[in-house]
Amino acid sequence: MKILMSVPNVSEGKDRELVESIIEEIKKVKDVKVLDYSSDADHNRSVLTYLGEPEKVLEASKRMAAKTFELIDMSKHKGSHPRMGAVDVAPFIPIREVTTAEAVEISKQFGKYVGGLGVPVYYYEDSATRPERTNLADIRKGEYEALAEKLKKPEWKPDEGPVQFMPKSGAMVTGARFPLIAFNVNLRTNDVNIAQQIARAVRHISGGYRYVRAIGLALEEEGMVQVSMNLTNFLKTPIPRVLETIRREAARYGVSVGKTELIGTIPMEALEEIFKYYLQAHDFSVNQIIENSLIG
Amino acid sequence: MKILMSVPNVSEGKDRELVESIIEEIKKVKDVKVLDYSSDADHNRSVLTYLGEPEKVLEASKRMAAKTFELIDMSKHKGSHPRMGAVDVAPFIPIREVTTAEAVEISKQFGKYVGGLGVPVYYYEDSATRPERTNLADIRKGEYEALAEKLKKPEWKPDEGPVQFMPKSGAMVTGARFPLIAFNVNLRTNDVNIAQQIARAVRHISGGYRYVRAIGLALEEEGMVQVSMNLTNFLKTPIPRVLETIRREAARYGVSVGKTELIGTIPMEALEEIFKYYLQAHDFSVNQIIENSLIG
Repeated sequence: MKILMSVPNVSEGKDRELVESIIEEIKKVKDVKVLDYSSDADHNRSVLTYLGEPEKVLEASKRMAAKTFELIDMSKHKGSHPRMGAVDVAPFIPIREVTTAEAVEISKQFGKYVGGLGVPVYYYEDSATRPERTNLADIRKGEYEALAEKLKKPEWKPDEGPVQFMPKSGAMVTGARFPLIAFNVNLRTNDVNIAQQIARAVRHISGGYRYVRAIGLALEEEGMVQVSMNLTNFLKTPIPRVLETIRREAARYGVSVGKTELIGTIPMEALEEIFKYYLQAHDFSVNQIIENSLIG
Repeated sequence: MKILMSVPNVSEGKDRELVESIIEEIKKVKDVKVLDYSSDADHNRSVLTYLGEPEKVLEASKRMAAKTFELIDMSKHKGSHPRMGAVDVAPFIPIREVTTAEAVEISKQFGKYVGGLGVPVYYYEDSATRPERTNLADIRKGEYEALAEKLKKPEWKPDEGPVQFMPKSGAMVTGARFPLIAFNVNLRTNDVNIAQQIARAVRHISGGYRYVRAIGLALEEEGMVQVSMNLTNFLKTPIPRVLETIRREAARYGVSVGKTELIGTIPMEALEEIFKYYLQAHDFSVNQIIENSLIG
């Protein structure tokens, strides 16, 4: 069973009723499950999380977008979180048996739909049409207020929709990205330099694994230090490979791992790799898990 | 969400229609999922597998039993597999968030119900009322044919139902037991003595872990040997502890683990221990797995 997740951010964090009427639109699509929605009043922004089969999630996203563009007027929006549009950003995230290519395709069908509603759309992450549109922060620079000028520049021609500033909707960013895994490794030392050295060893930017972002920091209360990481593609840079590298680097300093933390949620496929690695159970499949027969 | 599984064995393996009419009874209980049913004509026996919340599984089991005792006449039964009754044995197996005590309680409610239908019932495994009734083979010794004489002996007074031979139904065995995990570890040597030494080191009977049964055998084709195990309580004797013991014992002979195999299905809780052990992720919970939100 294929599962795709979407986590759109919409630019309303105070009007509970408005947000709930968007959620109602999503729930109209059978077999799409809303996992969570949470609003921040200062940010004036809500994060919606839902999942299901890719085609169903696409349908739910179309309904979500149509409703949001109807209800939110960006020309009156104020909030502390960077934003560029009513549906500010809508990532599509493969959870199970969905390839990056399939998620990119869904994001583009969604982008075309929103473009057809008269909203300028930019593709980011794995759906980006040029390298300088990969990162959300780069696309969103200057925010809603800069949009009118930005849209006049050829390098910021939208990927879909009108090449024109639309005051009510602003612009939207969408695309496919892998689920981000927040993984922390605590080390039994109070020397924060060791955590920083190890963070440099494993992270992409300084020569480490391609899909690792890492920093080293002190945990004053625990009397430990931590390598705090985001793993941005668990298939290509799996958790156990990163952990074992950290264990070996730490051993250079005579330091051991105290514990690790997986923060938030994680797809089962990311865990499958953990069994296979440590048990050497090469043929194991998540389909052997009894509870999987109950999913659906 | 609590999940209990039942895997009753019924004494009919040829008449597909009869078996399907029993399955239909189980399916009448909403939210009980039939995972599998398979029949063996020589054994003249079928194995039914279903799961759901404990109370729902109890209800399904009552319906299954009532139908089976209606349709099967043991006085005409022939088959190569040992058996004592129409519903021969009905184990209740905790899969998720169900304690042994809860499963025992369900098995006893089921036993009382079947006793009330006029069928002698024995409790086995974790539900056994005396040590000599723990093993199915001990209770079933002599099979259906010995039942008339057996029921005259005070030591074989049934736990529920009539103290009397009932020709049509025979007797039933029920009880709670933990899921059995079939786990094999292949070693990179062709010396079967090493597998046998290690099997002796880990198995209960010869001084090893309490919930491990193990044998050592040769894998001629692979040119390896195997420690082939059943783990009978993965909470009390967890998979990674057994595997690491085998790795250390194998190292005494300079031998490495080639691969391991988990055969058949496994509850997610048994896998949770694997993460926690190898990642040192003490706070991890299976509720962090995204797909779990879809179960139900």
